[in-house]
Amino acid sequence: MIIRHATILTMTDRETFVGDLRVSDGRIVEIAPHVAHVGAGEEEIDATGCFLLPGFVQPHVHLCQTLFRGAADDLELLDWLAGRIWPMEAWLDESAMRAAADLGIYELIAGGTTAILDMGTRRHTSVLFERAAAAGLRYTGGKCLMDRDRSGRMPAALLEDVDSALGECRELIASFHETAGGLLRASLAPRFAVSCSDEMLSGACDLAFEHGLIFHSHASESRAECELVRAATGRNNIDYLSELGVLGSQTVLAHGIHLFEGELDLLFGTGTHVVHCPSSNLKLASGVCAVPEMLDYGVNVALAADGAACNNRLSMFREMILAALIHKPRVGPTGMDAWRVLEMATVNGARALGLEDEIGTLEVGKCADLVVIDPRRPETLGLGDAAARIVYACDEGSVRDVFIDGRAVKRDGVVRPLGADEVAGAASEAWERLRRDFTGLDGGTAT
Amino acid sequence: MIIRHATILTMTDRETFVGDLRVSDGRIVEIAPHVAHVGAGEEEIDATGCFLLPGFVQPHVHLCQTLFRGAADDLELLDWLAGRIWPMEAWLDESAMRAAADLGIYELIAGGTTAILDMGTRRHTSVLFERAAAAGLRYTGGKCLMDRDRSGRMPAALLEDVDSALGECRELIASFHETAGGLLRASLAPRFAVSCSDEMLSGACDLAFEHGLIFHSHASESRAECELVRAATGRNNIDYLSELGVLGSQTVLAHGIHLFEGELDLLFGTGTHVVHCPSSNLKLASGVCAVPEMLDYGVNVALAADGAACNNRLSMFREMILAALIHKPRVGPTGMDAWRVLEMATVNGARALGLEDEIGTLEVGKCADLVVIDPRRPETLGLGDAAARIVYACDEGSVRDVFIDGRAVKRDGVVRPLGADEVAGAASEAWERLRRDFTGLDGGTAT
Repeated sequence: MIIRHATILTMTDRETFVGDLRVSDGRIVEIAPHVAHVGAGEEEIDATGCFLLPGFVQPHVHLCQTLFRGAADDLELLDWLAGRIWPMEAWLDESAMRAAADLGIYELIAGGTTAILDMGTRRHTSVLFERAAAAGLRYTGGKCLMDRDRSGRMPAALLEDVDSALGECRELIASFHETAGGLLRASLAPRFAVSCSDEMLSGACDLAFEHGLIFHSHASESRAECELVRAATGRNNIDYLSELGVLGSQTVLAHGIHLFEGELDLLFGTGTHVVHCPSSNLKLASGVCAVPEMLDYGVNVALAADGAACNNRLSMFREMILAALIHKPRVGPTGMDAWRVLEMATVNGARALGLEDEIGTLEVGKCADLVVIDPRRPETLGLGDAAARIVYACDEGSVRDVFIDGRAVKRDGVVRPLGADEVAGAASEAWERLRRDFTGLDGGTAT
Repeated sequence: MIIRHATILTMTDRETFVGDLRVSDGRIVEIAPHVAHVGAGEEEIDATGCFLLPGFVQPHVHLCQTLFRGAADDLELLDWLAGRIWPMEAWLDESAMRAAADLGIYELIAGGTTAILDMGTRRHTSVLFERAAAAGLRYTGGKCLMDRDRSGRMPAALLEDVDSALGECRELIASFHETAGGLLRASLAPRFAVSCSDEMLSGACDLAFEHGLIFHSHASESRAECELVRAATGRNNIDYLSELGVLGSQTVLAHGIHLFEGELDLLFGTGTHVVHCPSSNLKLASGVCAVPEMLDYGVNVALAADGAACNNRLSMFREMILAALIHKPRVGPTGMDAWRVLEMATVNGARALGLEDEIGTLEVGKCADLVVIDPRRPETLGLGDAAARIVYACDEGSVRDVFIDGRAVKRDGVVRPLGADEVAGAASEAWERLRRDFTGLDGGTAT
């Protein structure tokens, strides 16, 4: 396959050029102003007037929460978790999990996201792996670990002992890690210090080291969370995680908003990755992560949408425009320029996933995870720099084609592995059951 | 015409119901769970599964700047104005103004905006009225008044003396006010205190009173602007405008970010309207207007996108999600709920325009300015309250139909008065000339 005449953003630098890109066996094999020869049967895709860049990488998503979109608006983090999200996660059966996964994966692909780091819930994690494989999404995920209720508000159905939880993690690793042609990868996902004992956090970290996996958690998202951790451990959150030995380049922490003295240095010194989720942080009134300052300090910060229950979209475009805009009044109009935001959305995400040699930039030898963005609708047409046009003006509707490992998962605006009607139909069935089992979910819903 | 089976948000309260709405001669004549009789030849539009609400009202837009999208990214307000926007406004000829207007109007209609308050530039204001009339947009506009350079950075071509400027305003009023079946209304638009003498501001205000027109200006957008006004007048910005006697229920001020002691009370006491433009305020690093606090105080605050040169879209959906999200970390998760945001986008805007008896809510006797929003794409499907679904999940792609005075300006996703190709073609021609006359506008542009 050759994609021709695109304005190419390789994301290895802040330059662009008009050229062609050839894919063979799922890998990028040539990038040049003109790729001359077309082999027999090699497909040619014209991308004149379009941008070609690496697929977006979202290293903090909760696919299992996609069904809860709109079910928990205008609540603070711990009320949101305890009042809505935890009981609903406990409610999810295999069929609802499948509907949630497909609804989320459809949206991710439609918006140009090609790789995610996902956190499941206690049960049915295998459904998430299976649906990601079926859709051809580059998926790193793990069951959510919760064994200790430091909030006093967790449903018993989500709690389990360390041995049983980590035992299931071992089974998931054996079943799914590096399967589906390498698209699937297992990870360890203790929810946060409020829901985990020292033993759970350390055990998960050991298991991550043993198999070379990602340790994925939340940290320092809200003040109340930080206070619960301090009350339980006598330490600040990041400081506590550091003492347990779980920080490091294998560790991906979502949020990182409320940092105390020395904690930024702990993140930097250990090579821990931070994931900025601006829509979620704002909607839950959690606060604003000091992202430009963190990047200046040398911490790798990526970008992701979190779950549809708290944002309410899984759109990298929404996260990009928010990341570009919300810090400027604090740091000035150039502190978060469009290239910096686009790097967070691609190469920094690849780094957080430990996949910087495979994805995140367009380079010969890397996987062909690609997005073709067409900026020619009147609403998005304009002058200026390519990154600025993508970040400030484009939207999900601009995503024309998406490829993962060279396989088209969206072409000419149509998502291929999943049908919109089937996805919506399965979600609607699950919502009927959810409405039956929970009250107060509706108010003028049009579905 | 009858729109049937919609989930109706009248915006007179925070309730919704499923029902029908009948339009006759451009007015709403019936709203009920079921409208029984269909007259001969009366069109029926099925809106099952969709939301029906008043068209969005944006009482602070600069259509003339739509061509400058992407031409001035990552700059502070006064650098942005002096380095880019003012020279480019001075550059606009009649043909470029026409292209800019059509590009903006296309996007506004596509996104469900049915009424705007627009600020032109010094010249070619009549083109803006003519293009709005041609598209059937409810348009209140006026030429931009600038006679005094308190920044030391304004191009001479934008400055003119008070008599000549207000003389042209009289001509525009005579030519356009209350024409095009009432869709067009003239207004007075002194740019801001930094660019206007006392005589210009007072003269414009007198003319507004004489004809019952809106006085439309910017105030207290950036710190540097406030300092220039203080240096020139010895007073804070709002205080100065108050002393001149230009505050009042006819006055619409964009931004209102940097208020000093007593100034909020001046806005409230005079009934002056404030327009919140979150994307513009963030992108120019101007700051964040204390909107929930201002609404609690009793000031009428509306919502608008400002110009495409500073945001970079004219989308009410982007402004709504920003208005809903950015204040929450400061005021908590319920301080700007979705209904409050939707009220800003509809009824508060109508009030700012002085058109609260004509538009802004769905009531019998009001103009049929309507939007049908289809939330059934998988990306926007979810549970919950109608306002929350619209504000947090929907986007421009959800806007199915738009009516102004009962006339369809968008149907089944297609903008009717303007063709996308024609609009894009005319803009591209203007951009070629703009590129020839200004340097540094490109960097990997894909057009």
